[in-house]
Amino acid sequence: MKRIYIILFVLLFIVGSTSLMAQQVRVFPSNWWVGMKWNNVQILLYNKSENFVAANIKLKYPGVVVKKVTVLENPHYASIDVTIATNTKPGNVIIKYNNKEGINWPILQRRAGNGKQFAQGVTSNDLVYLLMPDRFSNGDTTNDKIAGLLDQSLNRDSMYLRHGGDLQGVINKLDYLKDLGVTTVWMTPILLNDMPSRTEHGYAITDHYTVDPRLGGNSAYLKLSAAIHAKGMKLIQDAVYNHVGIKHITVIDPPMKSWLHQWPQYTQTTYREQVLFDAYAAASETKKLSDGWFVPSMPDLNQSNPYVANFLIQHALWSVENFGIDGWRIDTYIYNDLAFMNTCNKALLADFPSITMFGETWVHGVVNQSYFCENNMNTKFKSNLQNTTDFQQLFYGIQAALNEKQGWTEGVSKLYNTTAQDILYKNPMGQVIFLDNHDLSRFFSVINEDVAKYKMALGWLLTFRGIPQLYYGNEILMKGFSNPDGLVRSDFLGGWKQDSINKFTTTGRTAQEDSVFQLIKTLANFRLTSSAIRTGKLMQYLPDDGLYTYFRYNQNEKIICMLNTSTTNKTIDISVKYPDMVKAQNSVKNIFTNEISSTKINIPAQTFYIGKLL
Amino acid sequence: MKRIYIILFVLLFIVGSTSLMAQQVRVFPSNWWVGMKWNNVQILLYNKSENFVAANIKLKYPGVVVKKVTVLENPHYASIDVTIATNTKPGNVIIKYNNKEGINWPILQRRAGNGKQFAQGVTSNDLVYLLMPDRFSNGDTTNDKIAGLLDQSLNRDSMYLRHGGDLQGVINKLDYLKDLGVTTVWMTPILLNDMPSRTEHGYAITDHYTVDPRLGGNSAYLKLSAAIHAKGMKLIQDAVYNHVGIKHITVIDPPMKSWLHQWPQYTQTTYREQVLFDAYAAASETKKLSDGWFVPSMPDLNQSNPYVANFLIQHALWSVENFGIDGWRIDTYIYNDLAFMNTCNKALLADFPSITMFGETWVHGVVNQSYFCENNMNTKFKSNLQNTTDFQQLFYGIQAALNEKQGWTEGVSKLYNTTAQDILYKNPMGQVIFLDNHDLSRFFSVINEDVAKYKMALGWLLTFRGIPQLYYGNEILMKGFSNPDGLVRSDFLGGWKQDSINKFTTTGRTAQEDSVFQLIKTLANFRLTSSAIRTGKLMQYLPDDGLYTYFRYNQNEKIICMLNTSTTNKTIDISVKYPDMVKAQNSVKNIFTNEISSTKINIPAQTFYIGKLL
Repeated sequence: MKRIYIILFVLLFIVGSTSLMAQQVRVFPSNWWVGMKWNNVQILLYNKSENFVAANIKLKYPGVVVKKVTVLENPHYASIDVTIATNTKPGNVIIKYNNKEGINWPILQRRAGNGKQFAQGVTSNDLVYLLMPDRFSNGDTTNDKIAGLLDQSLNRDSMYLRHGGDLQGVINKLDYLKDLGVTTVWMTPILLNDMPSRTEHGYAITDHYTVDPRLGGNSAYLKLSAAIHAKGMKLIQDAVYNHVGIKHITVIDPPMKSWLHQWPQYTQTTYREQVLFDAYAAASETKKLSDGWFVPSMPDLNQSNPYVANFLIQHALWSVENFGIDGWRIDTYIYNDLAFMNTCNKALLADFPSITMFGETWVHGVVNQSYFCENNMNTKFKSNLQNTTDFQQLFYGIQAALNEKQGWTEGVSKLYNTTAQDILYKNPMGQVIFLDNHDLSRFFSVINEDVAKYKMALGWLLTFRGIPQLYYGNEILMKGFSNPDGLVRSDFLGGWKQDSINKFTTTGRTAQEDSVFQLIKTLANFRLTSSAIRTGKLMQYLPDDGLYTYFRYNQNEKIICMLNTSTTNKTIDISVKYPDMVKAQNSVKNIFTNEISSTKINIPAQTFYIGKLL
Repeated sequence: MKRIYIILFVLLFIVGSTSLMAQQVRVFPSNWWVGMKWNNVQILLYNKSENFVAANIKLKYPGVVVKKVTVLENPHYASIDVTIATNTKPGNVIIKYNNKEGINWPILQRRAGNGKQFAQGVTSNDLVYLLMPDRFSNGDTTNDKIAGLLDQSLNRDSMYLRHGGDLQGVINKLDYLKDLGVTTVWMTPILLNDMPSRTEHGYAITDHYTVDPRLGGNSAYLKLSAAIHAKGMKLIQDAVYNHVGIKHITVIDPPMKSWLHQWPQYTQTTYREQVLFDAYAAASETKKLSDGWFVPSMPDLNQSNPYVANFLIQHALWSVENFGIDGWRIDTYIYNDLAFMNTCNKALLADFPSITMFGETWVHGVVNQSYFCENNMNTKFKSNLQNTTDFQQLFYGIQAALNEKQGWTEGVSKLYNTTAQDILYKNPMGQVIFLDNHDLSRFFSVINEDVAKYKMALGWLLTFRGIPQLYYGNEILMKGFSNPDGLVRSDFLGGWKQDSINKFTTTGRTAQEDSVFQLIKTLANFRLTSSAIRTGKLMQYLPDDGLYTYFRYNQNEKIICMLNTSTTNKTIDISVKYPDMVKAQNSVKNIFTNEISSTKINIPAQTFYIGKLL
């Protein structure tokens, strides 16, 4: 078994690294596996310079049945629909065309450890760390510029040029992350963005089967995945189904007219998700939302075209199996064709039953957000997406809690009310909570660089319901407003050898930064020992004069968390105020200080308290 | 049939007017009817000065089976559980006790016209007018003060003293209301509030079977009901189940300890509805919300006590049948025992299948509000209440639309988003929309007395989805902030003979007031001719630079409504902008001016446009 694994790994490595090479014919997916539930594969061939002729396309391999060969509207493309029998032997399938030499299309044995060593799913047991690989750490300076790519920039002083960070950089910092208490790495997309500019974010994919060589290519991604798993950590991939970069192969030379959503003139999505569920919406506006382009440089894929759907679904399956992904983040979830998304999500779950997925839902309202994931609403369309990025807990939760004085509906009252609305989610414990991300103003700036408030926010983030997600630099007080978004995508100082300050080390951090780092480390590591916080129930109490109290509890453990957002110190007998959870005979251990006290607790103004009931 | 009706009316009149008389024994309900679905009646006897003895209580009447006689914990009370057979002949049942002379307990024939002449239900076909009878019009100065009642005040200069308005005053103004386009009258509660002060609002009921004599008593209420129905209008009663006035018979001399929710010390409800649906709520807080008192002067009824439940349900049924009520508004819905409310609502619907009910839900969030009525959420508890007072459309709809500049989530965007969330309601068309009421700041003040904005709000109110509700004085620009609430409860000038100005007449109104009056009248009367507005579908478009456009439509009619909340005039070709509803060949009739134009429409800044597509 071990020997097979090594062979497999080598084979994967070859497949990975060849995909960047200029090939006469490209094949999507670049290989497949025996024993996938998705065993009807639609192989898409692309020949940039020659037309296909259906009769000349041949594929013969025991166990692989060709069902249909089609030359597409654009004869540079042909598809071969095959079925791979479960007893097929792994090996190299040769696809012949136009009487040329054959193309290799390997059929491999599946990666070991589905659901255990990869595709494990990311849950509330985890702490996710989102980073931008170009901006986090430069582990390999040889790949900073790659000849032949459109974007030849390399200038750390300019926020939209490339900075040189890469996957080796991430590998180098895994111990740092593990020490901090992080269990899961989520990177903005790592696939090739061969675009003339703005390639730092990765959302304008131009080749689905090639990891950006500036990040280290497919081999570095495989290495990162292996390194992450070797440390008992997990890997989330950021998937982009809605659009591609305008320099994508299938945009430059489209397989067919209907590959993209075409409009008589450039038409942008309205970004208004309401039209998808609003019973009063106009059909013209629903179409515009879904089929309008995200931005001019990112054409909108027509996911109701079965060729597009197969291309995307197969790529998703291929990515998880090939790279050993554990969790799946879906970009701009709402602009996708939601029916397609259900099909796609279902396919991923069929082959990877433990994987988890969450979609980006930058929307306003718990009703709006829950519509896009499994929910408790009776609506015609039902999403099968497990969870979303919980923008509601951000905008109408922790931001309000810390930036507004408590009123009937303001401040912590808003956080409380938003949380009560969790009844709409099938699984609120899977919602991804966060303070900021690569698109949003950094939280430290949002709260006016108030360290006390920031610590309260982090206390909340690491103890509340859901999956906490940090954004790189949260731990060192990185700041910036997202207007423009480049300002929230600064380098992590110390990630480059030439950096004179290294904030990955205690000595490189200011005392204030280090106090934040230590707070995260303390809570994140306590979290790992506390089943109540990770998977326990939540009980929340009505906020009172700025004090918001909640408990995380299970049969073994009760944890009390208090955010005193007011400007006055409070002394509370928690056995009187929270009788459902605390008895007078309880004592409480402060998790930060380890001090044990009676149930009469002092919570200074603008602080977060966390205690374990004894 | 007609003769029977007259006899019935006279009989009802007697029943009504005797209930105020000092009686040795009070009987609740004071009578019943043959043929009610609710034919198991629990008759509650009260003798202020003598104990009941079960064995001495006798009731014999053909068709009436006594199932149980119980002397309650407080022997001043006894209950007789009877079943009234469907073939029972109407007549006077005699209840004997303690060998005294019998008490009359009439069993009547039911009121004619259930669902047709009364209990018709109030729907989006209607326009509701909410008024406070003490403040609207004084039609009978002889009842301004009633000897023997605790509140002997009468001073129109003082906002919390009595002003003398009454039901005869309302009768006198029915033609005025009908002319305005009103179809339905809703008054704040008319039952006796024999409280020492603050009796103007009516929510502190002290006797369920007695209409306040200062308003004209039971006879005036019957007269009003008859007059309303004679004009083809409808009557809503304001029901208070949650609490009673502290001078209520059953508080002064409680039937049993568990009649009220008792606390070791005075405990007020938290007014926080979230604890009812929040999966994370603490049981102690759920109890406090439901069982805490509304205010010290209004004790909280224990509706899980079956005697209380029967008392309240039977009173509701009795009120509708006795007075001929069409719609049922339920005060402070969320503080009631919701399981009780379901039972109560069900009982009303069983006997009055066409009646409609709506509950007061002064809450924040469509999730929160929809929880209390029939909704599309899968939750453990399911309310059977048809509809609510739509505070969301007020706070997060029209108020925001007119007081905030449009932003991504502000201004008309908020109105748009709140409306999209209608997917949570089973029947959004039954939601009661309004600009203000007796508890809220008057809308004209909320929008800083801006008449242009006010007219937009009225345009919206009278054309949007749901049941529009006016608050008395909306039509004459009455103003005031609800802090304190007395300031929004001023007299309708002209309702008192001594008023030098009569705003019920054109000459009494200023030009500005009259323009508002005429706008309401025009739209309310157009509404009566427009099935699309009354019962048609709604289509809403994404707001654009402050312009919010919606259509009301059915197979026969299309109406376009536009609120230009921006500060710039707009000229829109509606066939281009709203292609789902308008074709280039359409023309449009402006409902205000009757002018017919092409689809290119000019909408000045801060105006409301309404047009019918031709």
